[in-house]
Amino acid sequence: MSLEEQAVALIGAARGGDERAIARLLRNVEDETDLGLAAWRRLFKDSGRARVIGITGPPGVGKSTLIGRVARAYRDQGRKVGILAVDPTSPLTGGALLGDRIRMQELAVDPGVYIRSLATRGAVGGVARAAARLVAVLDALGYEIVLLETVGAGQDEVEVAAISGTTVLILMPGQGDEIQALKAGLIEIADIIVVNKADREGADQLAAQLRSVLRLGARPDDRGWVPPVLKTVAADGTGIPELLSAIDRHQDYLDRTGQGMVRRQAALRKAVWRELEALLLRRLTRDPSAGSEFDRLVRQVEAGELDPVTAAAALLERLAKLAPARPES
Amino acid sequence: MSLEEQAVALIGAARGGDERAIARLLRNVEDETDLGLAAWRRLFKDSGRARVIGITGPPGVGKSTLIGRVARAYRDQGRKVGILAVDPTSPLTGGALLGDRIRMQELAVDPGVYIRSLATRGAVGGVARAAARLVAVLDALGYEIVLLETVGAGQDEVEVAAISGTTVLILMPGQGDEIQALKAGLIEIADIIVVNKADREGADQLAAQLRSVLRLGARPDDRGWVPPVLKTVAADGTGIPELLSAIDRHQDYLDRTGQGMVRRQAALRKAVWRELEALLLRRLTRDPSAGSEFDRLVRQVEAGELDPVTAAAALLERLAKLAPARPES
Repeated sequence: MSLEEQAVALIGAARGGDERAIARLLRNVEDETDLGLAAWRRLFKDSGRARVIGITGPPGVGKSTLIGRVARAYRDQGRKVGILAVDPTSPLTGGALLGDRIRMQELAVDPGVYIRSLATRGAVGGVARAAARLVAVLDALGYEIVLLETVGAGQDEVEVAAISGTTVLILMPGQGDEIQALKAGLIEIADIIVVNKADREGADQLAAQLRSVLRLGARPDDRGWVPPVLKTVAADGTGIPELLSAIDRHQDYLDRTGQGMVRRQAALRKAVWRELEALLLRRLTRDPSAGSEFDRLVRQVEAGELDPVTAAAALLERLAKLAPARPES
Repeated sequence: MSLEEQAVALIGAARGGDERAIARLLRNVEDETDLGLAAWRRLFKDSGRARVIGITGPPGVGKSTLIGRVARAYRDQGRKVGILAVDPTSPLTGGALLGDRIRMQELAVDPGVYIRSLATRGAVGGVARAAARLVAVLDALGYEIVLLETVGAGQDEVEVAAISGTTVLILMPGQGDEIQALKAGLIEIADIIVVNKADREGADQLAAQLRSVLRLGARPDDRGWVPPVLKTVAADGTGIPELLSAIDRHQDYLDRTGQGMVRRQAALRKAVWRELEALLLRRLTRDPSAGSEFDRLVRQVEAGELDPVTAAAALLERLAKLAPARPES
């Protein structure tokens, strides 16, 4: 079978609900094998239909429990749910254990739910690229809701938020001052803010603080959406229906104002740019002569004979020459 | 004055200790202005001499206080110290306030110390690229010690650790389980681990836990270095001399085993690769026809007429054609 035929067969099996085929498809896409690339290029055009919901926030706030509740609620509406967890626990080993997700076991055995974790790679932009691709694959396979969980804060969160239609930030009462400060960055990417563990002391104060912070500054993409601050107790399900209806309202807002299209276009721009970087990296790793040219340039930089900008320009010239006459496969 | 002459003049003033010139130089390098690029390309060859020490760890563990102590100790040895803080507080606004660094005021008025923060940008790889450049500039300006502070966890930390000769991970007793798990990823990039606030309950247990985790797995670059676990109370200076001598031992290890050279080469490879990405981005933003080609391709992807990989290949071909005959300035 040709690569294209293999890709078609794998996609067919995955669409048919074969869990092993889905796993194999996602793994090949994440690992960027030839089969994965071929499949992904085919699948991409069928993406853009799912509702992609980013769930982010500092460790320990109860994201997994809340995601379990939200997934359950969407399942009760009869929708297929994909869950993708970006797990930074081991950025260097590429380890991708789902950690303490035992509580998701009930969901894991539901054929209408697909749960997967994504290793955070060492490569620059690798996490966001892989997350964007896997979200598009789940989307194209017919998962109507894709929940994208990220842990921690910083660059990754911003990148991953850009993939999501709606970004939900989860916080909890009783964390330290510096952690609060960190959240300031996350607040800017949030469409909905949830104060989880709201049965604990300080929940009302935190919610009030967040509302006043939100009142201070309109965001650049603001067309009238003020992120609501909700309270939940994910452990017992309190507040989950309100969260779902807030997500619905945000989706309506995106559709009504055209912001959804603006976001999708911005995400596509980033996707194409990331593919360009991936393309260069593939050419570099797959062409031995380009690899030795890179080594030679780095040695010259090390010796102080060349600055990194000049070296980069020389490397680009070399990699661009490897371009095939027709768009590459 | 030509751009090159301006760059030479600015570098001369910065080397002469003119604080405003240093600030202007760093700002231009970070903002990637033509002047900044010209200056940075000149300065790069003089870098590689400073001892670059990464200080990382979750929020609230006392990194700023500890950095203040370490900087003070190096100043007492008569060495010039540069401090660069990568602050993720506001990744979207590019805000770069040093936050609660008032405690560093004593250092800030010392002409032998230069403190600066770095905004975490929205661009992929932007933080690591900017951090690498600014470290190289401080290095080339004669700062013998460069302390690089990062907050949070994930991709950024790994990238930034790759810039540092020695990476010090700061933890503290009494944080939650999930935070502990997060640390697992950070432990792999640590050359030295510090349990700060060691006068609190649980410090000995945490140190013992960390030592047993470290015993479990040798890291890929291991040539006999087992990260020591130290206890400090940065607030009163306890343990700082021991930390300095651990840093010295690690530097000796890097020199003795050749690991230092291995790390420097790996960092240079990353630097050249990041410059290649920056080069492409500059061509895209500065050439209007490339910009409209990009828009056209994205619209085709949006319409489902093109997949992102094919679009990326077409864009690369276009950008590569913009290559000047001689290495670009």
